[in-house]
Amino acid sequence: MPPIKAKGYAAKEALLDRLSRLSRIDFEREEPKDDQVLIDILYCGVCHSDLHQVRNDWGNTVYPCLPGHEIIGKVVTKGKAVTKFEIGDTVGVGCMIDSCGQCGSCREGLEQYCEGPKSWTATYNGPMKPDGTNTFGGYSTSIVVKESFVLKIPQTLDIKATAPILCAGITTYSPLKFWKVKEGSKVAIVGLGGLGHMGVMLATAMGAQVTVITTSEEKRQEAQALGAKEVLVSEDSDAMSKHELAFDLILITIPDKFDVTPYISLLKRDGALVTVGLLGPYKNPLNNMELAMHRRTVAGSIIGGIQETQEVLEFCAQHSILPQVELIPIQDINQAFERMKKEEVRFRYVIDMQSLKKEQ
Amino acid sequence: MPPIKAKGYAAKEALLDRLSRLSRIDFEREEPKDDQVLIDILYCGVCHSDLHQVRNDWGNTVYPCLPGHEIIGKVVTKGKAVTKFEIGDTVGVGCMIDSCGQCGSCREGLEQYCEGPKSWTATYNGPMKPDGTNTFGGYSTSIVVKESFVLKIPQTLDIKATAPILCAGITTYSPLKFWKVKEGSKVAIVGLGGLGHMGVMLATAMGAQVTVITTSEEKRQEAQALGAKEVLVSEDSDAMSKHELAFDLILITIPDKFDVTPYISLLKRDGALVTVGLLGPYKNPLNNMELAMHRRTVAGSIIGGIQETQEVLEFCAQHSILPQVELIPIQDINQAFERMKKEEVRFRYVIDMQSLKKEQ
Repeated sequence: MPPIKAKGYAAKEALLDRLSRLSRIDFEREEPKDDQVLIDILYCGVCHSDLHQVRNDWGNTVYPCLPGHEIIGKVVTKGKAVTKFEIGDTVGVGCMIDSCGQCGSCREGLEQYCEGPKSWTATYNGPMKPDGTNTFGGYSTSIVVKESFVLKIPQTLDIKATAPILCAGITTYSPLKFWKVKEGSKVAIVGLGGLGHMGVMLATAMGAQVTVITTSEEKRQEAQALGAKEVLVSEDSDAMSKHELAFDLILITIPDKFDVTPYISLLKRDGALVTVGLLGPYKNPLNNMELAMHRRTVAGSIIGGIQETQEVLEFCAQHSILPQVELIPIQDINQAFERMKKEEVRFRYVIDMQSLKKEQ
Repeated sequence: MPPIKAKGYAAKEALLDRLSRLSRIDFEREEPKDDQVLIDILYCGVCHSDLHQVRNDWGNTVYPCLPGHEIIGKVVTKGKAVTKFEIGDTVGVGCMIDSCGQCGSCREGLEQYCEGPKSWTATYNGPMKPDGTNTFGGYSTSIVVKESFVLKIPQTLDIKATAPILCAGITTYSPLKFWKVKEGSKVAIVGLGGLGHMGVMLATAMGAQVTVITTSEEKRQEAQALGAKEVLVSEDSDAMSKHELAFDLILITIPDKFDVTPYISLLKRDGALVTVGLLGPYKNPLNNMELAMHRRTVAGSIIGGIQETQEVLEFCAQHSILPQVELIPIQDINQAFERMKKEEVRFRYVIDMQSLKKEQ
C-alpha cells in the first residue's frame, strides 16, 4: 500500500502573541495496521481545548500541532483483523486513540484515567505524558485509528452536527452519570459554551431540573430553549445567594482560571461541584469552612471512556439530542478561534472537511 | 430549685497577642427544663479548636468564651420528661447541645449539618450562625443539656480517657464511614495530633491499611504503635512521589492553613481527600488538572451526628480503642494551650475537673 497522503491545518510554532495561526500542511498517515482503520474525515468539531493546545497554555505542546478530536468520517480501509467495522461505515473518533490497556482503569473501560507510564494517547499532541512523540488530529483529510478507539455513529444522528458529542458531549455526560443525576436532581451548569450547552440537554434528558449559571444575561433565552428551567447571572449576588444549598451537582464548564468560591455555597449538603473545563489551578484557594459545614465535595472529571462515549452517542440518538453547530470551511479556522475566545460561538464550530479536500 | 452555681475557666476577651489567657469565672447554670439533665462534669478534653476559638481565629467568638466540648460527667438532676437517663448515669456531651430539629439534615440525624436559621448550637460559643447569644462549655463544674444531645458512655470505657472520642473520635470516624473505609482500604492520615491519632486507630479497626503522613520524623514510632503500617514524612518528596495514586482516602487533620497540593497526587482514581481540621481557606489554589486527570475529589467534613457519636463510642468500646491522654489540672490550661500550639502533646490533654471543684 502506498503512503497515505493527507492535508491538514496545523500550528507550526507557538507565536509570541500566544495564538498560533493555523496554516496548511501536507503530511503522510501511516497505513493501517491489522487492528486499525483508515477514516476519511467528513467533519471535525472545534473544541476550546484546541485553542489552549495551539497556544501551549498547558506547556506540553509539541509543534507542529494539528488539532481536532471530534471527528466524524467514513471507514475507507481496514486492517485484516478488524471485526467491528466495514468499509463505508460512518464512524467517530474522540479525544483518545490509544491507552496502555493494562492498568486497572483501562481494564475497567476508563481509558481516560489510564495509569500507564505515558497515560492515554491523545488524538492530537501525542501521549498525555509527553515523550516527544506527536499525533495529528482531525483538522485533516484522514486519520488512522485502532478499531477499539473508534465509535459507531447511530444512523439517526445528523452527521453534520454529531462531532461535538465526541468531546463536549461525553465530557458532560460522564460526570452527570458518575454523580448519579436522575429524575428530579437539581443540577447547575456553569458556562454555556460547547460543553455547557450539551450539559443542559443531557441533564434535562436524564430528568434533572437544570439551572444555567452564566455571566451573560443575553444567553438566558438560549439556555431556556435548551431545556434550562432557570437562569442565574453569576454577577447577580442576590440571585446567587437565594440559591444557597440548592444543587445536588454543579458542573463547571468554564475553560479558563476562575474563582470557585461563589459556587460552593450553592451546593446542598453532600453535593458535588465538578469542574470539567479547566485544566489548571483555580484562581483562589478553596475555603474548607464552606466544604466542611455541609460535607460538600469539589471534584474534576475528564472526557469519558470509549464504552461510555458509545453510550452517550446512543443516548443522544434516543433522546434526539444534537449539538448546535455552525459549519465552517477550514480556511476560516483562525477567525473561528478568535470568535471562540470572545465567546461568540453558539455553540460549536464544526469544520466541513470538503473545504480542505478541495484545496490543491 | 435554686440557681445552679458553677465555676469555670474562660477567656474574657481576645488579647492583642491573639492568645487569650483563660482565668476563673463564677457563673450560674439555668436549672434543667423538662427534657434536660444537669451533669456534674468529671473530665473535659482540650481540643485544638478551643485554642482557635479563644483567639477568635474564626472571627465569631463571643466573650467571655468558656471552651470545652469533650465532656464526661454524671447525671445529677433530670427534668421530668427525661426517659433516656437516670441519676448517676455516666454520660458524655460533644460539640453540639441543640439544633433546629426540623430541617432535612436534622431529620436524618445529621444535626452537625443543620440547615436551620441559626444552624446547630455549639456546646460553647453559642449558635453556629452567631446572634450574640452565648453558651458555656465543659471547662466548668457542671452543664445542663437536652437529653437528646447527651451520649451514653459504655461501661467498659475508661472514663478518664473517653472524653476525646466526643470530638476527635467522631470527627475522624464520621468521614471514614461516609467514604466507606473497609477491609483493605488504603487510608492516609495526615497530622498526628488529637484527631490524627484517633483516625489511625479507628481506620485500622475498620480493616484499613493506614499510612501516617507527618512533618515530624520523631512521630514514626508512635504512629506505628497506634497501628499505622507505614509512615511518610511530608517533606521527603521522594517518599511522597513513590506514593502517587496510592490512597483511597486521605484524611487531613492539620488544624491550620496548609497547601493541599502535595497530597492530591497521592490519591487513587476516584479517591477522596477530606479535610477535617481546617475551618478556613487552604494556602494555595487547587489545581483541577490533578483532580480531573484521575477524577479525584476534595471534600470537608465536621464532627458527626448524635446517633453516629453514640456509634463511635460503642465502636471504641468494642475494639478497645481509647484516646491517649494526659490528665491536667485546670490551673495548667494556659500552659497546655502553649504546648498544644507547639505540637508537644501526645495526644490529648484532658482536664480532671476535681482540680476546679477544689478551688474556692
